[in-house]
Amino acid sequence: MDKSKAQLVFDKMMATDYCSQWMGIEAVTLSEGHCKIKMTVTKEMLNGFGILHGGIAYAFADSAFAFAANSYGRLSVSVTGSMSFSKSAQEGDILYAEAVALHIGYKTAEFDVNISNGSKEIYYRFRGTVYRKSDNILDL
Amino acid sequence: MDKSKAQLVFDKMMATDYCSQWMGIEAVTLSEGHCKIKMTVTKEMLNGFGILHGGIAYAFADSAFAFAANSYGRLSVSVTGSMSFSKSAQEGDILYAEAVALHIGYKTAEFDVNISNGSKEIYYRFRGTVYRKSDNILDL
Amino acid sequence: MDKSKAQLVFDKMMATDYCSQWMGIEAVTLSEGHCKIKMTVTKEMLNGFGILHGGIAYAFADSAFAFAANSYGRLSVSVTGSMSFSKSAQEGDILYAEAVALHIGYKTAEFDVNISNGSKEIYYRFRGTVYRKSDNILDL
Amino acid sequence: MDKSKAQLVFDKMMATDYCSQWMGIEAVTLSEGHCKIKMTVTKEMLNGFGILHGGIAYAFADSAFAFAANSYGRLSVSVTGSMSFSKSAQEGDILYAEAVALHIGYKTAEFDVNISNGSKEIYYRFRGTVYRKSDNILDL
Repeated sequence: MDKSKAQLVFDKMMATDYCSQWMGIEAVTLSEGHCKIKMTVTKEMLNGFGILHGGIAYAFADSAFAFAANSYGRLSVSVTGSMSFSKSAQEGDILYAEAVALHIGYKTAEFDVNISNGSKEIYYRFRGTVYRKSDNILDL
Repeated sequence: MDKSKAQLVFDKMMATDYCSQWMGIEAVTLSEGHCKIKMTVTKEMLNGFGILHGGIAYAFADSAFAFAANSYGRLSVSVTGSMSFSKSAQEGDILYAEAVALHIGYKTAEFDVNISNGSKEIYYRFRGTVYRKSDNILDL
Repeated sequence: MDKSKAQLVFDKMMATDYCSQWMGIEAVTLSEGHCKIKMTVTKEMLNGFGILHGGIAYAFADSAFAFAANSYGRLSVSVTGSMSFSKSAQEGDILYAEAVALHIGYKTAEFDVNISNGSKEIYYRFRGTVYRKSDNILDL
Repeated sequence: MDKSKAQLVFDKMMATDYCSQWMGIEAVTLSEGHCKIKMTVTKEMLNGFGILHGGIAYAFADSAFAFAANSYGRLSVSVTGSMSFSKSAQEGDILYAEAVALHIGYKTAEFDVNISNGSKEIYYRFRGTVYRKSDNILDL
């Protein structure tokens, strides 16, 4: 079966996304404007309080955000992102980041990314805005 | 000379902050409510566009934020953080994150963290809020 | 029938909330951790581009946020709020702001507020954090 | 003396900005990428706790943001804005909102707006991003 555009974009981005590779990110589901990825919390991701470093939670969400935002083919770059912290993840936790499109405009787009362990409880909430360039990411 | 409280807090947090260790973070200046740290962008920190992953920029800022917020001794945990992206850092760049206190309340506090290469131009801007617990971080 | 606690809190807050009165805010549904209110866009709410001033959209969301956050009885004050703009409202539009609890912690809580004209399309998205005091708002 | 472009843009926007007129906003200083405005807190701006409604603080900042962002001549529209609350203003307080450019990009720009009573203490902090259109606001 032919790969979807969302899958092609993910493959192209992941090939040189050494940071997402370091996080051990794997795709769960990919479609236009939507993305669900997973990773396992490792010792190198912990902060001085023995929990997942907030910045790595952000990085995990930011990767989901980038895959979803670029899934339309239009090259999209982060302008702003924000994160809130409800519950802490621990070493060994398997986390899922799910990105959904809130608004797709001509030049900007907005996404929510929720991070959970697969149950309904949300650990971290991310909301971000991209600027959408004219370039097709698959032509770069 | 005796170490300052800010230095003691930094040392205690860094000892088990495996993520900040992974980022290669070093202290430049530490004082109550203020912190300046540095790191060098490595290949593992890059995203699929060949630039510093936005999440690692956030993580770098978040570490500076945490050191500054805890420097008063009161255990402080992130509630929200946001970041904006003005300029991209490249592999090999030496970056500085400087955290300054905007507002220190009884139960919440707010900080700005600017990331630059040491010149006046800001690459990434972070603003975050902590909740301040009653516990003394040095007694934990 | 006895009024719910959420209704009592709303009534008490609205009695001296001259700004929400100026906006013409009316309750649609009120319950613990949830609130839906409405208003009509007036000429005095427009900005220089002939559309609803972004700050009044924020104020409308902020009122819904405050009613929902205080609906538990614990006095709750805003720490941070953010808003994104997807579609502009015009004079005469009837708008609804619906607040939902994302996370209720011991000392902080987070809410989303979406503003629409009653259809599925969201015009403005608000996300905010409160600090929860020990005081009971109904005892003040 | 000829009016500056920043002054011409302010005059054009204020002429139909009924909301800023309702707030009683007056210009203090206007230049490219910078704006300082003032207003007096009235009873209609208060919330149910007897202090300035957070949304009106946001609206005041948002007006300063809009005047500064449009001062270059390029039509600029809000994408996101966030606000944090350090100190409450009371009825009769004279407030100043000062907008400064953080980053001016080709298609997006970012500004900080601090609100104070003229002393060094900041009551409210706003940070926002605009999308910059190609249209010249003075030609509309």
